[in-house]
Amino acid sequence: MIMEISCPTPHNRYDKIILAHGSGGRLSDRLIHDIIIKELDKAYIDSSHDGAILEIPGKLAFTTDSFVVSPLFFPGGDIGQLAVNGTVNDLVSCGATPLYLSLSLILEEGLLINELAQVISSMAAAATRAGIKIVTGDTKVVEKGKADKIFINTTGIGSVAGNRSISPYRCMAGDKIIITGTIADHGISILSTREGLSFESPVTSDCAPMNEIAELIFSATDDIHVLRDPTRGGIASALNEISHTSAKEIIIDEASLPFKEQVKGACEIMGMDPLYLANEGKLLVFLPDKHADSVLKAIKSHPLGREAAIIGRVSNGEPGVKIKTLVGSTRIVDMISGEQLPRIC
Amino acid sequence: MIMEISCPTPHNRYDKIILAHGSGGRLSDRLIHDIIIKELDKAYIDSSHDGAILEIPGKLAFTTDSFVVSPLFFPGGDIGQLAVNGTVNDLVSCGATPLYLSLSLILEEGLLINELAQVISSMAAAATRAGIKIVTGDTKVVEKGKADKIFINTTGIGSVAGNRSISPYRCMAGDKIIITGTIADHGISILSTREGLSFESPVTSDCAPMNEIAELIFSATDDIHVLRDPTRGGIASALNEISHTSAKEIIIDEASLPFKEQVKGACEIMGMDPLYLANEGKLLVFLPDKHADSVLKAIKSHPLGREAAIIGRVSNGEPGVKIKTLVGSTRIVDMISGEQLPRIC
Repeated sequence: MIMEISCPTPHNRYDKIILAHGSGGRLSDRLIHDIIIKELDKAYIDSSHDGAILEIPGKLAFTTDSFVVSPLFFPGGDIGQLAVNGTVNDLVSCGATPLYLSLSLILEEGLLINELAQVISSMAAAATRAGIKIVTGDTKVVEKGKADKIFINTTGIGSVAGNRSISPYRCMAGDKIIITGTIADHGISILSTREGLSFESPVTSDCAPMNEIAELIFSATDDIHVLRDPTRGGIASALNEISHTSAKEIIIDEASLPFKEQVKGACEIMGMDPLYLANEGKLLVFLPDKHADSVLKAIKSHPLGREAAIIGRVSNGEPGVKIKTLVGSTRIVDMISGEQLPRIC
Repeated sequence: MIMEISCPTPHNRYDKIILAHGSGGRLSDRLIHDIIIKELDKAYIDSSHDGAILEIPGKLAFTTDSFVVSPLFFPGGDIGQLAVNGTVNDLVSCGATPLYLSLSLILEEGLLINELAQVISSMAAAATRAGIKIVTGDTKVVEKGKADKIFINTTGIGSVAGNRSISPYRCMAGDKIIITGTIADHGISILSTREGLSFESPVTSDCAPMNEIAELIFSATDDIHVLRDPTRGGIASALNEISHTSAKEIIIDEASLPFKEQVKGACEIMGMDPLYLANEGKLLVFLPDKHADSVLKAIKSHPLGREAAIIGRVSNGEPGVKIKTLVGSTRIVDMISGEQLPRIC
């Protein structure tokens, strides 16, 4: 009875996103303050403006990524965690220390507000873990059937130390190539969730921020040539891009590739090539041979780098990626030409 | 006949976006280089990396916006032009000189590649006009029915001159308020296109970059308190936000509001309140009374500022926006609570 005469509290009346949440008016304001900024909590710096004003020491790294992964939640992560770590890892791949993120949401009418809150809360935790702050944002709502629940864009700013120069153009003959851990975990996690496959030991995504690993690498030596996070398209696509950009040959030793046993099994069952499957918490590191052992040791000292391995080398041969197989033959690992797995990130 | 035995040129085989364009493999590469980077032409700086490395003088402004406007093309502009100018104008509203943009695309399977090329070419023209460079990007593809043709995120970086401080918190009693031109043009352009309405003289969107206008303003005086581009939610929402952020009363004089005749007519026919309709090439300027006339003169010297007018003032009264109507009464202009016009930008 009392309830009926109490004041209306409009932001509690909705358990789903409606178009008016994107109007730029009162409901937009409530959604942004009562859900998004509230869930972001300490991961957000309020600027109450159309943009943030920042001071960045040194050179600046700038990178953008939109996330459309399906399903939103998967073993080992969710779209929010992916959206933070993905952009953090792109900044790390530029040799930068991640500092600030923008957050832009496209929401589908009918999305459960609880699901949104869960995703945002997950972003807050990921941002805190990676030591990055969300400083500006935008929210749009589209009609039911015109998007798929939540699409997230994060754009990142990082600071690059004075004389550091990390770039695929710096891939050089004689470089050793390190991967910081097991491959294909994220791809298999998404794929097995989508296909409803379950394994004895579940395959979880490797979604994680690589900034601490990068700090350990740079504390071992500043003489790093290329860093790359091998996401969509897997290590095959990342290595091909670096090979063709630098016009160098890359040779990978199959026996040295670190795998989780259950990932290897899942790839065999589903007929997937793990070289093309996405990773969301790994770095490829290209560096002079003489630093390879000390950097490998530094990476292995971190919980996220325990399975790190030297997986190959760079030579002056014909550009392209070759793999020495377990049986001793050599095969070319080309760029993927069709679509192996849509909406992996 | 010759055609049949000629080499296949895969990027020409597709006139529509397919999922493999988002794979991170060969087709993604072709789409990015042969369509997107080609159309961006001189508006793009190639970094061939996951991100761009930039040097920014002074403090940095950082702002993000996703664009989901429907239809993609409308009288006076398109989603590409809007995506550049929208973020340029958010940077201008921070008191910044726009410098760099990121460009992130979410494409729906089945989108005509010609439509994409047209949008990107339009972005290139808008970026060139605003003197901003696109430096990094991302492209995702989702299945047909999981998006609506094209969604675009642009995130912008600008440079803020040393002691400049533009913020809604600096709205002060005694400030005059200038609008740089006629209101509601963008809203009416979209709405009449959607409804299939045609007027004797067509209503075109005001979509335009405000950076030159801002330069003229600052060349008249550095003593500017607030700049704001009144987009989604119109001048009513922008003024309410500034009023409540600064805890000041804003009083607008209805007779002073500049309108295009056909916009006024369209609003009457469709029963829309122009105060709530979006503008995409206008600035609200809050500044001390003593500079109002010289700044107004400076704005009017620019082709985009011919219809500029002083439309109101700030006082120490109760926070909120009031309008003195043509008949002499005063009414409260509240924030919009429902949705007037979804997907306006």
